[in-house]
Amino acid sequence: MIKAGIIGATGYAGGELVRILTGHKDVEIKWYGSRSYIDKKYAEVYQNMFQIVDDKCMDDNMEALADQVDVIFTATPQGLCASLVNEEILSKVKIVDLSADFRIKDVATYEEWYKIQHPTPQFIPEAVYGLCEINREAVKKARLVANPGCYPTCSTLSIYPLLKEGLIDPGTIIIDAKSGTSGAGRGAKVDNLYCEVNENIKAYGVANHRHTPEIEEQLSYAAGEPVLINFTPHLVPMNRGILITAYASLKKEVSYEEVKAAYDKYYANEKFVRVLEKDVCPQTKWVEGSNYVDVNFKIDPRTKRVIMMGAMDNLVKGAAGQAVQNMNLMFGLKESEGLELVPMFP
Amino acid sequence: MIKAGIIGATGYAGGELVRILTGHKDVEIKWYGSRSYIDKKYAEVYQNMFQIVDDKCMDDNMEALADQVDVIFTATPQGLCASLVNEEILSKVKIVDLSADFRIKDVATYEEWYKIQHPTPQFIPEAVYGLCEINREAVKKARLVANPGCYPTCSTLSIYPLLKEGLIDPGTIIIDAKSGTSGAGRGAKVDNLYCEVNENIKAYGVANHRHTPEIEEQLSYAAGEPVLINFTPHLVPMNRGILITAYASLKKEVSYEEVKAAYDKYYANEKFVRVLEKDVCPQTKWVEGSNYVDVNFKIDPRTKRVIMMGAMDNLVKGAAGQAVQNMNLMFGLKESEGLELVPMFP
Amino acid sequence: MIKAGIIGATGYAGGELVRILTGHKDVEIKWYGSRSYIDKKYAEVYQNMFQIVDDKCMDDNMEALADQVDVIFTATPQGLCASLVNEEILSKVKIVDLSADFRIKDVATYEEWYKIQHPTPQFIPEAVYGLCEINREAVKKARLVANPGCYPTCSTLSIYPLLKEGLIDPGTIIIDAKSGTSGAGRGAKVDNLYCEVNENIKAYGVANHRHTPEIEEQLSYAAGEPVLINFTPHLVPMNRGILITAYASLKKEVSYEEVKAAYDKYYANEKFVRVLEKDVCPQTKWVEGSNYVDVNFKIDPRTKRVIMMGAMDNLVKGAAGQAVQNMNLMFGLKESEGLELVPMFP
Amino acid sequence: MIKAGIIGATGYAGGELVRILTGHKDVEIKWYGSRSYIDKKYAEVYQNMFQIVDDKCMDDNMEALADQVDVIFTATPQGLCASLVNEEILSKVKIVDLSADFRIKDVATYEEWYKIQHPTPQFIPEAVYGLCEINREAVKKARLVANPGCYPTCSTLSIYPLLKEGLIDPGTIIIDAKSGTSGAGRGAKVDNLYCEVNENIKAYGVANHRHTPEIEEQLSYAAGEPVLINFTPHLVPMNRGILITAYASLKKEVSYEEVKAAYDKYYANEKFVRVLEKDVCPQTKWVEGSNYVDVNFKIDPRTKRVIMMGAMDNLVKGAAGQAVQNMNLMFGLKESEGLELVPMFP
Repeated sequence: MIKAGIIGATGYAGGELVRILTGHKDVEIKWYGSRSYIDKKYAEVYQNMFQIVDDKCMDDNMEALADQVDVIFTATPQGLCASLVNEEILSKVKIVDLSADFRIKDVATYEEWYKIQHPTPQFIPEAVYGLCEINREAVKKARLVANPGCYPTCSTLSIYPLLKEGLIDPGTIIIDAKSGTSGAGRGAKVDNLYCEVNENIKAYGVANHRHTPEIEEQLSYAAGEPVLINFTPHLVPMNRGILITAYASLKKEVSYEEVKAAYDKYYANEKFVRVLEKDVCPQTKWVEGSNYVDVNFKIDPRTKRVIMMGAMDNLVKGAAGQAVQNMNLMFGLKESEGLELVPMFP
Repeated sequence: MIKAGIIGATGYAGGELVRILTGHKDVEIKWYGSRSYIDKKYAEVYQNMFQIVDDKCMDDNMEALADQVDVIFTATPQGLCASLVNEEILSKVKIVDLSADFRIKDVATYEEWYKIQHPTPQFIPEAVYGLCEINREAVKKARLVANPGCYPTCSTLSIYPLLKEGLIDPGTIIIDAKSGTSGAGRGAKVDNLYCEVNENIKAYGVANHRHTPEIEEQLSYAAGEPVLINFTPHLVPMNRGILITAYASLKKEVSYEEVKAAYDKYYANEKFVRVLEKDVCPQTKWVEGSNYVDVNFKIDPRTKRVIMMGAMDNLVKGAAGQAVQNMNLMFGLKESEGLELVPMFP
Repeated sequence: MIKAGIIGATGYAGGELVRILTGHKDVEIKWYGSRSYIDKKYAEVYQNMFQIVDDKCMDDNMEALADQVDVIFTATPQGLCASLVNEEILSKVKIVDLSADFRIKDVATYEEWYKIQHPTPQFIPEAVYGLCEINREAVKKARLVANPGCYPTCSTLSIYPLLKEGLIDPGTIIIDAKSGTSGAGRGAKVDNLYCEVNENIKAYGVANHRHTPEIEEQLSYAAGEPVLINFTPHLVPMNRGILITAYASLKKEVSYEEVKAAYDKYYANEKFVRVLEKDVCPQTKWVEGSNYVDVNFKIDPRTKRVIMMGAMDNLVKGAAGQAVQNMNLMFGLKESEGLELVPMFP
Repeated sequence: MIKAGIIGATGYAGGELVRILTGHKDVEIKWYGSRSYIDKKYAEVYQNMFQIVDDKCMDDNMEALADQVDVIFTATPQGLCASLVNEEILSKVKIVDLSADFRIKDVATYEEWYKIQHPTPQFIPEAVYGLCEINREAVKKARLVANPGCYPTCSTLSIYPLLKEGLIDPGTIIIDAKSGTSGAGRGAKVDNLYCEVNENIKAYGVANHRHTPEIEEQLSYAAGEPVLINFTPHLVPMNRGILITAYASLKKEVSYEEVKAAYDKYYANEKFVRVLEKDVCPQTKWVEGSNYVDVNFKIDPRTKRVIMMGAMDNLVKGAAGQAVQNMNLMFGLKESEGLELVPMFP
């Protein structure tokens, strides 16, 4: 039985980790860290867990935690994990960090976009970017996994095959993303009140959202050259789900079958990436509550562009589910253990 | 491995049966019945099941089905199951009927409220009303289980202990119910369009909803005398969830502890009924996707009434989940097998 | 041109006052009071008012305001209006108070339910309860109008005729209310976040909501005797709208026509109360954005009860619209001036 | 008093026409055409109009109508208006056609995208494309106005100034659009049921939506050369509102002020187009129920692109509001008459 600790267990991603790990047959949660709710029963913060979780919330003490558990999940704002981690801790436990601290290899880029100084850049090189479908082998050997951001996961998986296969022009990529509101977290802000979000849609972070350099870095690896993109997220009146609609110019005339083959080359054997059938557009509701990413594409012969689409649950494949997928790989378990979640519809 | 067939697999309750049975380790679905979609791939009707279910939809042939499976679930409108069932079929398979056909013992009452003639009243006496927490032992021995309606499940479980213990006056019960829209089914009607339901709430079926006699019958058993109630359902702009708020006059002055003890007497050992802590009101979101019913109550000393509240997922404990719970009992499996679904929040 | 000042102009009710008064041909808003946003442009707080309102927010200075305007609307939490008002101010301006401070005639009841001491009980006797349809003549002569609460407006108007005509037993009234989320205000609280309210319904304030004594007082006037009720509000995932479903025992056997006549007696000439046609249940969406209250009823001969229903927009007839209706009466304008708002559907 | 007739009065756009014209002081509706509901009271189809509209629905008889009214609005599917119109009718009444029949000048393009034969192409040349802000003078003289589509209105107004001023490369325009569900109409289809749309987002009509050639034609006029675009609409779980996010490459390095000046050049005196302040992103909720289009932009110096955004209410500026704006121009009324609708928030 793997003993797990969660730092930041009362945010939405933390709550989803608890939901998933509770159903994981090889894991036992030993530490529900939540600085805001210390000593409060976890099930009083999330009443859905009444009679399922009996523990109380505890402080974010990574040192103490490292002695008691085998794996630590940090579902906290950027800066926290990086400020707590050290060599001694890493020698004792594996860490899956759901924050952005170790996702970006170039520390200057991180500091520029996140406006904070990185306290422990020495661990960046060894951190593995935990996009399992791309970096599976490296994840298996990692002590420290940087769990990808929600938008980067959906964007990268939707675009990766065409870029890798050289079918699209890297300089023309535009990603228009739409996210449910749980992505904004559980902080009490007027902008996230029901009446402000409901019956409303808006773009935000236009041309400066922090997930931009993370996506660019991953796409650059695929392209084999530096990639700059436009990335525009939108807030949608729904709890869960991310849909990305990406545009790029085709490098040459291609058929449906050629593009489909590119996706199949990378995903035919991937359980959690479903390449939909021709002309079926991904919908976020079809993956809700599950670890799936549904992707598909459409060629526009008029404009010689391809439209790439991807849908996933931002709290599962976009956060907690992928974190558990990484944990499974790190501990040599079956990759889908605890993640055989059937999407809930409606 | 139990072989299961579903008649009406493409309605919302049928879809939920597929979701739950897909995750049930002892069951294999052999027949996806759907007259409307014969020969269409099931996963084209419910794209969430893409790469999970490969079968095609089949006709509603109960005779053929009886030879191939161990249990049949009928998730169809009233009248269909009753018109298909016969002694030969019942001698071959067990049936869990999610329609109202076998829920009401008095056939005249059924025919009056449902405005149809019952084609096979001879099977009504043996049918067991599948409210597992109340009729567990009878369910275990049944060939034919009448799976309770969504409102009756939530209403009966919320009120039962106080009526059984003689704490409330049976003549004063009023049930004000609120349901998500999946309860209205997947038929294409203007009234159920997004724009008609969203940002709106209304009562419907006032003083004549068909679940009224079903609730009255169950409460009458608890009271030991005939019970008449007022029952008013409302349509709420959400997909899933039923909340009932019930009112009754207390027969005598009682303390919080006495009423709590009444609930605990019946539910302390029930996995799927959670009696919440003092002053915590049930919320439908806390049970979404799970088989739980959350109940609680509040005494109003000013009016000498008690307010009883219950929340559940109408498609799970109110339909497919309870059907699987019944199947587990009928086949001697662990009652919660396949139903250890952690509620999803948010 | 009537000069108006608003204290609390940046809450949802205050915002609705601005929306309505902006379209009122006899009124000019001179003061947008908002302690939280002093010196900020009003249209930056509510961007819908961009290029419509150019003013900045100002402090809540009632003394200064009294010298500059003809009428003050206080759309603030309880206690504020009562603490600011004095004889000098009342000699200069008329006040429509949207808070609860002057609604309840018995100061002890107010203090018990609101848990605060009333600072100026001497003004309670002269304050007129501004339910226009009931107290029209008194409102016309008032200096100080207590604008009714949202739930009390909808509840009282739905039940009043039957109680006044002696058709129902005052001791049996139960009001089950459902409200959109704007009723909870614009304060940043976790409970009102999008993800907490969406796809969810719950009761709150069970047996102790502060609108209870206000409703009881008004119903007592109608009944001619003290009335105790059960009142249970619920939070519904929608922005606007209140629906109440009320239950009472009939004193004698009555026909549909008799009950209809009772409603028509009081409302046939009322522009803003619409008694719907037989068997049509009120829906909140049908009154959204307007000052209408839609009411109807259903007799249940089985239980000898009547179910009374009412629907309105909580921010219009339940707050700002009724406040303007009161202002119109106080200044001798046409009662519906500025309120000829056609409900928006969908 | 202008007498108006509506063909297709019971669709959502038709209903919105009724709402707006009911509040228009110079117009009287004489004909509520609705083939589906002939002889049914209009207020029974749209209960929000109870006691506001007393008329019954009538047939779609344009000949009869032409003798009785001054202006006909056709809010019907494509093909209907074109099949009914003739010279005699146009000699008697003015027509505002809300369908696509007369929007596209090249009949072959119309027939290719709409898959129907145009029955009266002889009237296409005289029809004026009723985008008031662009074609105001022509509209004033028109007998037949083609009211623009919802997506084309929002797209064109958001992009027009930059294209007209030569700031962006016409070959690089990508429009990613998001619409509320009322745009899909009131037809009873499974895809538009509450449970299918709620908690979900999807793209549809990818690379082949019918509004594409309409947008391209308008943008071509602005660019002075043929323009091909990518246009991807998405269905958002909300009733009303369209948001477009458009991308284009800048032809040269420009400052915020230069781009702002381009927008101001065309819109500074336009009542219904609001160019928001720097860094404020349009939100659909800020224009709900009103005739406004809110536009803004953001320059991305990294990619040398500009992101253009526009938000409006699809049923008002995107349909009925713009139709009334056109009617006002055609009859020499104040352009904003009946359209001084303050956006409703929340």
